Amino acid sequence: MIVVMRREAKPENIEAVVGRVKELGFRAHLSAGEERTIIGIIGDERHLNESVFRTMDGVERVVRVVKPFKLASRDFHPHDTIVAINGLSIGAKRIVIMAGPCAVESREQIMETALAVKEAGAHILRGGAFKPRSSPYSFQGLGYKGLELLAEVREETGLAIVTEAMAPAQVAAVGECADIIQIGARNMQNYNLLHAVGELGKPVLLKRGMMCTMEELLMSAEYILSHGNYRLMLCERGIRTFETYTRNTLDISAVPVLKQLTHLPVIVDPSHAAGDWQWVTPLSMGAVAAGADGLLIEVHPHPDKALSDGTQSLRPARFAQLVAKVRQVALAVGREV
Amino acid sequence: MIVVMRREAKPENIEAVVGRVKELGFRAHLSAGEERTIIGIIGDERHLNESVFRTMDGVERVVRVVKPFKLASRDFHPHDTIVAINGLSIGAKRIVIMAGPCAVESREQIMETALAVKEAGAHILRGGAFKPRSSPYSFQGLGYKGLELLAEVREETGLAIVTEAMAPAQVAAVGECADIIQIGARNMQNYNLLHAVGELGKPVLLKRGMMCTMEELLMSAEYILSHGNYRLMLCERGIRTFETYTRNTLDISAVPVLKQLTHLPVIVDPSHAAGDWQWVTPLSMGAVAAGADGLLIEVHPHPDKALSDGTQSLRPARFAQLVAKVRQVALAVGREV
Amino acid sequence: MIVVMRREAKPENIEAVVGRVKELGFRAHLSAGEERTIIGIIGDERHLNESVFRTMDGVERVVRVVKPFKLASRDFHPHDTIVAINGLSIGAKRIVIMAGPCAVESREQIMETALAVKEAGAHILRGGAFKPRSSPYSFQGLGYKGLELLAEVREETGLAIVTEAMAPAQVAAVGECADIIQIGARNMQNYNLLHAVGELGKPVLLKRGMMCTMEELLMSAEYILSHGNYRLMLCERGIRTFETYTRNTLDISAVPVLKQLTHLPVIVDPSHAAGDWQWVTPLSMGAVAAGADGLLIEVHPHPDKALSDGTQSLRPARFAQLVAKVRQVALAVGREV
Amino acid sequence: MIVVMRREAKPENIEAVVGRVKELGFRAHLSAGEERTIIGIIGDERHLNESVFRTMDGVERVVRVVKPFKLASRDFHPHDTIVAINGLSIGAKRIVIMAGPCAVESREQIMETALAVKEAGAHILRGGAFKPRSSPYSFQGLGYKGLELLAEVREETGLAIVTEAMAPAQVAAVGECADIIQIGARNMQNYNLLHAVGELGKPVLLKRGMMCTMEELLMSAEYILSHGNYRLMLCERGIRTFETYTRNTLDISAVPVLKQLTHLPVIVDPSHAAGDWQWVTPLSMGAVAAGADGLLIEVHPHPDKALSDGTQSLRPARFAQLVAKVRQVALAVGREV
Repeated sequence: MIVVMRREAKPENIEAVVGRVKELGFRAHLSAGEERTIIGIIGDERHLNESVFRTMDGVERVVRVVKPFKLASRDFHPHDTIVAINGLSIGAKRIVIMAGPCAVESREQIMETALAVKEAGAHILRGGAFKPRSSPYSFQGLGYKGLELLAEVREETGLAIVTEAMAPAQVAAVGECADIIQIGARNMQNYNLLHAVGELGKPVLLKRGMMCTMEELLMSAEYILSHGNYRLMLCERGIRTFETYTRNTLDISAVPVLKQLTHLPVIVDPSHAAGDWQWVTPLSMGAVAAGADGLLIEVHPHPDKALSDGTQSLRPARFAQLVAKVRQVALAVGREV
Repeated sequence: MIVVMRREAKPENIEAVVGRVKELGFRAHLSAGEERTIIGIIGDERHLNESVFRTMDGVERVVRVVKPFKLASRDFHPHDTIVAINGLSIGAKRIVIMAGPCAVESREQIMETALAVKEAGAHILRGGAFKPRSSPYSFQGLGYKGLELLAEVREETGLAIVTEAMAPAQVAAVGECADIIQIGARNMQNYNLLHAVGELGKPVLLKRGMMCTMEELLMSAEYILSHGNYRLMLCERGIRTFETYTRNTLDISAVPVLKQLTHLPVIVDPSHAAGDWQWVTPLSMGAVAAGADGLLIEVHPHPDKALSDGTQSLRPARFAQLVAKVRQVALAVGREV
Repeated sequence: MIVVMRREAKPENIEAVVGRVKELGFRAHLSAGEERTIIGIIGDERHLNESVFRTMDGVERVVRVVKPFKLASRDFHPHDTIVAINGLSIGAKRIVIMAGPCAVESREQIMETALAVKEAGAHILRGGAFKPRSSPYSFQGLGYKGLELLAEVREETGLAIVTEAMAPAQVAAVGECADIIQIGARNMQNYNLLHAVGELGKPVLLKRGMMCTMEELLMSAEYILSHGNYRLMLCERGIRTFETYTRNTLDISAVPVLKQLTHLPVIVDPSHAAGDWQWVTPLSMGAVAAGADGLLIEVHPHPDKALSDGTQSLRPARFAQLVAKVRQVALAVGREV
Repeated sequence: MIVVMRREAKPENIEAVVGRVKELGFRAHLSAGEERTIIGIIGDERHLNESVFRTMDGVERVVRVVKPFKLASRDFHPHDTIVAINGLSIGAKRIVIMAGPCAVESREQIMETALAVKEAGAHILRGGAFKPRSSPYSFQGLGYKGLELLAEVREETGLAIVTEAMAPAQVAAVGECADIIQIGARNMQNYNLLHAVGELGKPVLLKRGMMCTMEELLMSAEYILSHGNYRLMLCERGIRTFETYTRNTLDISAVPVLKQLTHLPVIVDPSHAAGDWQWVTPLSMGAVAAGADGLLIEVHPHPDKALSDGTQSLRPARFAQLVAKVRQVALAVGREV
């Protein structure tokens, strides 16, 4: 941590900062520049609260030097984490494709979709039983009944299941039915929920909040990792910007940046980012070319009858075309589907 | 709801949309323009899923005509809601000032702060027992012990208490100790939590998510109102933008816009928006001049020793100056403190 | 400037950075922390290009320590700049009110508006002759003819004039007619235009770009100041965010932050920020309470017939009410109108 | 255009709107819904100013139905525009690669870079003579001397040249030396400059402003097209968001969205978006996989000595690897380099 003193700081201000640094068990290193003095603090700054110094007289700014995440960082864990699920290795050579409807709506709907996406080449079935909806008047998911339907489909099709838990109290039940517990974008900083999935130890897909930086995503990952659960995947699903043609802006740069910062697999969800099925295929191709380890795609057999997010759902036939195109791109970058 | 057809839409596309409208129990009203046809749908669009139409052939765009919130809207509830707490009327002539530390840290710290803010003119004490922190390595609050301390302070000082609940399981305990349950910005769309505080019926302070629109804030309010809990206040606390001098950007326009859209009281939290105590006083004055019904201000007797958010905390003496200045502005706009 | 080395940086990487620092005529100051080494560079960093170091092996990050602006900074110019125009002192006790239509449309329209805003208490008339419009199909302003009309109105009413120059070639003509040359938000980083108004030496109102940081605004101010033109005012007019109820988001915090960073007067334009006349009065009151030195308000005698921006224009009677309310707030904060 | 009346609008308000519609030469089409009346306006809305209606009593909202751009739209020009330059066809099967330094710094530097990028497979040389820089203290480019150097390099290497014009007065000179005139992101809404390059008729590369929507980009394109200059390419170069790891956020979705909305070629500049050379190669691969027609890449033989933007510049050897990887992706999507 570096403390930048104001131009007009007095010697006693500098002494006070140095005194405080020592009091907290750290060492201080002064550097008197032409315009101002800077004070380097030596020790593990992750345990230092920067406002201690920012509130002192004569201090202009406090700069953190090291990244605030540790368990999620490649600095301390250089090799790629590979999450093994149901015979799949997420984060390895194969691009993993998770596909299915936004929400489980009925036995027929989820079974029809599961068979279709399996046939088209998907490895994992997605489908929400608990649905966070911005309106209380919208369909909120089938809840526990939806989990039962997912368990049935898993039994019959052999597909692994990824589905969302919205509250700590749902985590155990979701964990029994699902192979991967999804933490949705709106819950990325729901710390009680992060604790709960960290404790359970089952694989987790952590979606980036639409308002969250990559660093905050990694800090939320740190919550889960710090409970000893390393079976964790990150998911970029678009961030909120001023652009309105797409629902959110897919932050494709998050793929190479996260792959550099962290050892965790990076999945991309182009469906929620685009908000419109028409752009899902090119975005999927772009994501894989940029280095994504997997895709999360919304597919619905009858998008016009979907109870949620129909606009961004692909029909099974178009999804099959997507898989074929993504396969070509994967091969071009030394991966496979 | 209005369906805008594509320029090249065929007559059978238009017929299909009209057919679907009727099938869903609504009426359709066609308007053939020079370049394209638009179809007006007559009936309560809040129960219509727009993707039903967006996914149909020949459709370019679907536009909602009415606001998606109803209980929160002035259209159906024109008069100001006034929340009565402990002899105070929030939303009436008096500007209500809630002040206190970010977190309850100890009996001494919270009692010292309570006495100081009461002396300076605050009406309600704020202080977090459960703290959402982006880092698992930061102080997470005293939890239930913190609630006990708040209850003690309330007993001794007579100040009403506002404190945060982070999970449905904490709501009952928070409700026993607090006069107002705060829903934090990161939990604005934690629907299980909104259900829980809606059910409990105690007064709620709902903070706007830092990347949520006003409409989304009102939809989250709708969740609480739809459980019959009308003792609800909204709180603007800054939104996330590209500007970095301040921690977030206080959306001052939210004050007049929300006062026009909804009957609920609007509180402003300039401390979290600014992220630096130096700008809290002018922002408080600006908020009151623009029509805010109350302020939520961080005060700490020793900001440099605060376990969280020290940088944005005012010392009690400066807080007393803030109250004096805000009082002048309140009088100038026909209010009082 | 501080160079943060990577955790795995080798001694020769550190030596290379130090060597480069010396080669450029600066001094280096090493500080070996627990996890990594940081190198302080001593000398005037404004003349250092940070990519020199960011591209070297073993370097993780480069942090600037001093603000990049100098002439605009209070560090080197602590006292408030006061811009004297036509008997007015902008930046002093009196809140200066500039009002008028978005665009000059005809002799009748601009004269009628000028008389009305003068009567209501405005000090300066605004009105665009050259209009930047996002559509080539929209009214582009009367151009030089508009300047002539403004000159006539000035002659007849005695009001000072503020009007925009969009290109270097227009600067001389605008400078002849106007008391203040406005640089619009879209041109905040049109450096050729900044040079031109810097050279001319007439008072300048520099509007913040809708997606520019305060630091970038001050850097653009630096362009003008570096040509010796200190008769400069800054104008906050809303920034682009994800919120859509208002056209832009008025960054009210920019008022106290800029007043702290710079000695230049700060004007607020709530009309462009809000995009709707209904919110202009409360935002004006908020801006003055937060410390603004002046307001820039759109007024049109017949908003429904305005050729541009009618929605955000106040009718003269409402503008007169705004001035009365702003006057009360000004008195409450020790200013006057 | 659709006018949505307020819930409480009176019959005379509706009549007044209808009367105004007719007065302006359009036809009105009423649709009385359950909660409110909507009025469809029939005629070419591009010539209608929406504030005419927004300012009338009883009006809640005005919704545009058609896109505001026409010449840039596929609706009126369904086939891809192909820009022929120096034997290249931009917008056809071949992915066009433009590469070179941020700025022309010296004869040696630009010649060395030109030969290196040509050898690696680039088709066009980029290099700025006029440089928009946010600081007046930074290198501003060699100006006309830089144009001469570019002309020499073009003569010797046979590479086509793309370089920026910052002001109308520079357009003729830039047009003499360059094959493509670049309009930089900060000038996307510098309408005087757009007029000037529209008039000249030489090929133009129009960069999206970092604060501009796709619709605004297409409106700026419309300015150039409306002068009869159809030799126009669009360039996505990153937009400003809250994320700070990358300098800007590459809006990869702009590629498929723009390809659908417009017939103009779409080029991607990953160097300015990323702000760091490390992420340029994966972003280039992603852009081509998503459908981009070309790339604009910064290359410098000695990034640590570059006078601007060194951090994001690739060394020639790395650029050659980029071209090889992009070629593989291009083949996988049915294109070629």
